[in-house]
Amino acid sequence: MKPSRLFALSLLAFVQSAVAADWQPLPGKAPAPKDNPTTAAKVALGQKLFLDPRLSATGTVSCNSCHNVMAGGDDNRPVAMGIHGKTGGRSAPTVWNSAFNATQFWDGRAATLEDQAKGPVVADVEMGMGSLDDVVARLRQIPGYEAEFKKVFGGSQPITADNMAKAIAAYERTLITPDSPYDRYVKGDKKALSTQQQRGMQKFADAGCVACHSGPTFNGQSGASAGAFMKFPAVPGSDYEAKYGFSSDLGHYNVTKRDEDKNTWKVPTLRNVALTAPYFHNGAVVNLDEAVKVMAKTQLGMTLDDADTKDIVAFLESLTGKFPSQQMPRLPATEGKTFTY
Amino acid sequence: MKPSRLFALSLLAFVQSAVAADWQPLPGKAPAPKDNPTTAAKVALGQKLFLDPRLSATGTVSCNSCHNVMAGGDDNRPVAMGIHGKTGGRSAPTVWNSAFNATQFWDGRAATLEDQAKGPVVADVEMGMGSLDDVVARLRQIPGYEAEFKKVFGGSQPITADNMAKAIAAYERTLITPDSPYDRYVKGDKKALSTQQQRGMQKFADAGCVACHSGPTFNGQSGASAGAFMKFPAVPGSDYEAKYGFSSDLGHYNVTKRDEDKNTWKVPTLRNVALTAPYFHNGAVVNLDEAVKVMAKTQLGMTLDDADTKDIVAFLESLTGKFPSQQMPRLPATEGKTFTY
Ligand code: HEC
Ligand code: HEC
Ligand code: HEC
Ligand code: HEC
Ligand SMILES: [Ca+2]
Ligand SMILES: [Ca+2]
Repeated sequence: MKPSRLFALSLLAFVQSAVAADWQPLPGKAPAPKDNPTTAAKVALGQKLFLDPRLSATGTVSCNSCHNVMAGGDDNRPVAMGIHGKTGGRSAPTVWNSAFNATQFWDGRAATLEDQAKGPVVADVEMGMGSLDDVVARLRQIPGYEAEFKKVFGGSQPITADNMAKAIAAYERTLITPDSPYDRYVKGDKKALSTQQQRGMQKFADAGCVACHSGPTFNGQSGASAGAFMKFPAVPGSDYEAKYGFSSDLGHYNVTKRDEDKNTWKVPTLRNVALTAPYFHNGAVVNLDEAVKVMAKTQLGMTLDDADTKDIVAFLESLTGKFPSQQMPRLPATEGKTFTY
Repeated sequence: MKPSRLFALSLLAFVQSAVAADWQPLPGKAPAPKDNPTTAAKVALGQKLFLDPRLSATGTVSCNSCHNVMAGGDDNRPVAMGIHGKTGGRSAPTVWNSAFNATQFWDGRAATLEDQAKGPVVADVEMGMGSLDDVVARLRQIPGYEAEFKKVFGGSQPITADNMAKAIAAYERTLITPDSPYDRYVKGDKKALSTQQQRGMQKFADAGCVACHSGPTFNGQSGASAGAFMKFPAVPGSDYEAKYGFSSDLGHYNVTKRDEDKNTWKVPTLRNVALTAPYFHNGAVVNLDEAVKVMAKTQLGMTLDDADTKDIVAFLESLTGKFPSQQMPRLPATEGKTFTY
């Protein structure tokens, strides 16, 4: 018996022992680390940085390019596309409710939003800046940022990579989508979900999806599996695995280099999942109904029929929340000059 | 004597005969064509389309990518960068106050904002869609757009390329920046401009800049030269011409194929010009002070010293207006699916 099969079996046992679904609404606020309290001024600065394409080598790509906060917080592309049209192997996850992730990135390689935010600016296939120092040097040439960083962080040299990351993370902590039909339902409004959605909710629990997709953001952040990386595919050998090439990227293994972490992945949120097609780390599955069938097969060894799939999809659609209204910021200018792009 | 020199001389004569500066504030509203009245619902739809990257082949480039309304309405790049990092030969002009242009594009090849808006979506180096039909087909797959177009335009098939362009143009007509220090000054608030700015204003008039940059948007839309295409460089042979390669693009000639239109260009607005570096149709000049020196030399045969240049730049900075606050829209979704990018 190959280790992957052994693993799959123990996982199935784990899934079967999962406690009954514990439906939780989305908190209205995300907890912030002690050294980065969320303040209005910091959030306003972070929003600007998030939307500012000058954080990229060509001046054309902002965080928002791949994580569109006017939409699902992603780019609806199979794999993300950065400067010069470069692509990597992974799909952009949503930033909506990312504040509730135990770790960041599909493979969990960043511990916090603060850590995460320093990655993309210097990633070759994303924003392509030569170094964090280059980013800082650029920001220091924008007088409006100098003033705003000073107001928020104080000190004689307020613009640093760490402060940039803190401001962006503080903004991201406000990207929360409460009050979905699901939330209203679990808070007692029994008419918030259609009967089909209620059926789908039950099937989602009965099938065992909740073993991994538990907690307020359905990413396993509460209950037995909190923060765990899960094998995907857990039940190897399905047609889907070959068809969609799920196994070529080793996931969490890339971070730990431990054999048992091969092809394990962070359980992603299912909040607003109807808005974030295509699906999975490689964005290989275009439709949500197909994604649900894939999950049933690869994680639970189960073939879902069309009716059950439709019900579960209807339930997943009830996880689309209310998006806080945002004012468009004014990005501070470099008067009478620009950067050499 | 070569024709270009002849032209330059007659132009200088024209400039010298220009009437005294007629300072005009910016109107608060832009006129709309009879067949496309500006309505709130149409503007809201146009704003979404303007910000929507799904109007591009890769799903990564929106109008806003090159005309950032959170900034100067441009991209602060030498030449614009579209899908796959492709570049053309021209710099992106601002969309702020573009409603007051007599024609659109540096070479005036579009008569109206409506005409203009159908260009970029299918331009290979911009948004790269195969055809307008492809754009329409895509929009028709977005239920939220179907509903909004219907509300705004009515009819059984409300999503058409023409209606898309109408909505975008209606939105652009709201992109007006009134109430700059200059506007307040000419309306009677004599403290709205610093003494240096007032000096610069006088020098701007005395030097002859107003011969071309006249009217409320400083793009020659009123007075003797209304809607005229101007030779640039008008006084040929300067070092700047060679250094910055101004003459290789034949400008308005590309549209008319008439010899006398070689190297003529639409007079661009100077509203918010401090925010829209780099300068000129090819974006070759990074700094505003250098751009002013270039203009003096190439258009008026005059060498401006540093003091005069600084004063004029200070005046030009007073043309930065107030940007209307905008709500970020929610872009309508394709639930549970996406496009094949
Ligand atoms: C060119 C596209 C691109 C850009 C630009 C980009 N990202 Fe990402 N982002 C991605 C991709 C792809 C991933 C997943 C990568 C992985 O898991 O290996 C990701 C992951 C993330 C995550 C983790 C979410 C999760 O659920 O694990 C966060 C948070 C995030 N990005 C925020 C940002 C911020 C902040 C910026 C700007 C400073 C940014 N991104 C810029 C594509 C992009
Ligand atoms: C054993 C753990 C486990 C179980 C059980 C499980 N999932 Fe998942 N789910 C994951 C992991 C891990 C991923 C991310 C896989 C990847 O893309 O690499 C995922 C991804 C998804 C996605 C795609 C999310 C996105 O944004 O791309 C959907 C949708 C989904 N799951 C739904 C379900 C449904 C419905 C069920 C039950 C039928 C289910 N899952 C059961 C672990 C699980
Ligand atoms: C990839 C960059 C890019 C994209 C995307 C783009 N533009 Fe432009 N835009 C330009 C450039 C460059 C010019 C000048 C081209 C020329 O004059 O030949 C221009 C010119 C214009 C003008 C004329 C302004 C003037 O003063 O003459 C308007 C208006 C405009 N664009 C609006 C739009 C709209 C609306 C969209 C989306 C439907 C859009 N643009 C998409 C780069 C872009
Ligand atoms: C004879 C006509 C004419 C005169 C006189 C003139 N300009 Fe211009 N100006 C133009 C034209 C045409 C352009 C666009 C040239 C190009 O980029 O192809 C332009 C462009 C500019 C630009 C760059 C705008 C941008 O967004 O890139 C600035 C700044 C400017 N002029 C300022 C001045 C100043 C200051 C003076 C006087 C010292 C002046 N102009 C005199 C016709 C004129
Ligand atoms: Ca996705
Ligand atoms: Ca410019």
